[in-house]
Amino acid sequence: MNEQNKAIADDRRRQWEQEEQAIRARLKAAGTHQVETLAARSGLEFLQAIFSGELPHPPIGETLNFIPVLAEPGRVIFQGTPTAAHYNPIGSVHGGWAATLLDSCVGCAVQSMLPRGKGYTTLELKVNYVRALTPETGPVRAEGKVIHVGGRTATAEGRLVDAAGKLYAHASTTCMVMTL
Amino acid sequence: MNEQNKAIADDRRRQWEQEEQAIRARLKAAGTHQVETLAARSGLEFLQAIFSGELPHPPIGETLNFIPVLAEPGRVIFQGTPTAAHYNPIGSVHGGWAATLLDSCVGCAVQSMLPRGKGYTTLELKVNYVRALTPETGPVRAEGKVIHVGGRTATAEGRLVDAAGKLYAHASTTCMVMTL
Amino acid sequence: MNEQNKAIADDRRRQWEQEEQAIRARLKAAGTHQVETLAARSGLEFLQAIFSGELPHPPIGETLNFIPVLAEPGRVIFQGTPTAAHYNPIGSVHGGWAATLLDSCVGCAVQSMLPRGKGYTTLELKVNYVRALTPETGPVRAEGKVIHVGGRTATAEGRLVDAAGKLYAHASTTCMVMTL
Amino acid sequence: MNEQNKAIADDRRRQWEQEEQAIRARLKAAGTHQVETLAARSGLEFLQAIFSGELPHPPIGETLNFIPVLAEPGRVIFQGTPTAAHYNPIGSVHGGWAATLLDSCVGCAVQSMLPRGKGYTTLELKVNYVRALTPETGPVRAEGKVIHVGGRTATAEGRLVDAAGKLYAHASTTCMVMTL
Repeated sequence: MNEQNKAIADDRRRQWEQEEQAIRARLKAAGTHQVETLAARSGLEFLQAIFSGELPHPPIGETLNFIPVLAEPGRVIFQGTPTAAHYNPIGSVHGGWAATLLDSCVGCAVQSMLPRGKGYTTLELKVNYVRALTPETGPVRAEGKVIHVGGRTATAEGRLVDAAGKLYAHASTTCMVMTL
Repeated sequence: MNEQNKAIADDRRRQWEQEEQAIRARLKAAGTHQVETLAARSGLEFLQAIFSGELPHPPIGETLNFIPVLAEPGRVIFQGTPTAAHYNPIGSVHGGWAATLLDSCVGCAVQSMLPRGKGYTTLELKVNYVRALTPETGPVRAEGKVIHVGGRTATAEGRLVDAAGKLYAHASTTCMVMTL
Repeated sequence: MNEQNKAIADDRRRQWEQEEQAIRARLKAAGTHQVETLAARSGLEFLQAIFSGELPHPPIGETLNFIPVLAEPGRVIFQGTPTAAHYNPIGSVHGGWAATLLDSCVGCAVQSMLPRGKGYTTLELKVNYVRALTPETGPVRAEGKVIHVGGRTATAEGRLVDAAGKLYAHASTTCMVMTL
Repeated sequence: MNEQNKAIADDRRRQWEQEEQAIRARLKAAGTHQVETLAARSGLEFLQAIFSGELPHPPIGETLNFIPVLAEPGRVIFQGTPTAAHYNPIGSVHGGWAATLLDSCVGCAVQSMLPRGKGYTTLELKVNYVRALTPETGPVRAEGKVIHVGGRTATAEGRLVDAAGKLYAHASTTCMVMTL
């Protein structure tokens, strides 16, 4: 990475860290929801209610240190920063950490397309690991995008990148769509 | 599940819980290793040194509440119990939790076949989700088995089951084998 | 492979070739079926009607030189022999050939568990390639086994081996179960 | 599909059919290559020599009725039209046909990025099936794009669409890069 690109990456990293502070300030404490709360909203409305702090955000986000950043139709972003609590035996970040962020962003990308009264369940997730995450990586973003949404199934893809745009992992998922 | 099967499942669950107590009593505090520690042992010796408490077990196991149970050539078992800290928004266990246990067991199954001086990295993992894990599920075991080990790549499969033998998720992985 | 194992493999290869002759003698000409023909039978009955020569076997089997061998509940085997017509540019067998046999055996393993009036569609297939198939490989068998069958989805796995038991590729699939 | 979109799709279909005629006119007869022929060219030069008719195109393309359309750095397109010879038992196109086209485009997308002296082998391929292909579908295009190319591994993704832009299947692959 040359000097100019490094400066751009450093700027973006600072921006991501500031956005994280702003998001954490508005997030409600972690907690879970009743199916009724979910069923009363479209998928996007439900996600936006979590992302805006109207509804609690999920406990797994606390445990694995990631937060919701953006939900729009067919596209959802989470941001996380791995810590020493997420290490595998050799001291890089466990593959399960990236899998969890990618599972979140691709599943929510599907959810963001569902009308009120519809829900989804993940049937399968494939994750490709491209490079190791380390504590030096800093914040990363998992961005999920819908590929196909039908009446009974949906598919989506996701990428995990750092502030320099470097790719760490990518994923695809198959979901089943169902009536809540 | 009929009465007899339920009694068998309850017995096995108690047995798994007792084994967990015994394992936790001997595990060393969580921590990570130098590549030299890894390189000085065969894959199986390294795993057994963690499993027996000679070497620290990984921090991710603390964070996601799972422990190593068994490592033999080509077959590795972890046991975990999901808690409220691992919930997704709707209050079932996040798919990333199962993905992490399955990633661990299939990766370590590959590692258990590697001679001294060889290591591996996970290229991809596919997880199939068959039923939702809930707090009522109790302890589950992720069992990984090697399918193929070559000089440059290896594949393995894994299953996540409860004490009644019920299947929750299964996985397959592709790893790259390399010189440490 | 030592002398003794080679003799065993040669015997099995001859046996597979003889079984192929017997199967080809009883197979009906290639053709397709109406949904009504399918809906009037359980999945296993439908497969057995093809395998026994009562119903036409599929055209893709002619094109890619493979035949049905065995269908029992949850387990289905196909046998094929790659030819020069299935080469990729470099003169080994195209990965799509193995994918086709594996897709057939895992899908039919699911179908073999479905009651009358139920059908399936394949949502996704993952194939791992372990070694290259060449014209010297001779006949190979793709064996599919069900992992999970539920009311709405099913999963299965498959392996592609030669007469010596050598593994060439393996696969897993996710299917949706539906009313015909 | 409204009238205007249908007209656009019909135009594109005619264009694809004309391009196919032009490509078939310049393609060399099907055949295979020596490793030396491959090793003497970069991946892109090798593909372009096939696509332009300087070198034979692969036999599997004849058998499954698909042709090479475009090879540029990191992006490769094939076009195929399913026929009755590619049917599964129920008379839709076998999933192996789509898998073969997708395997071709993602593998060649990786190959298009490799310098002279380097080759690749496919470690795994995952295909998602979104809708059934039928004889009415007409020509479809499989477009592969590289996601990551490293010194030892590479990943790519692919999509199979018809002239109206409708998605039938998509895929991702993991390849190993090696010295020829």
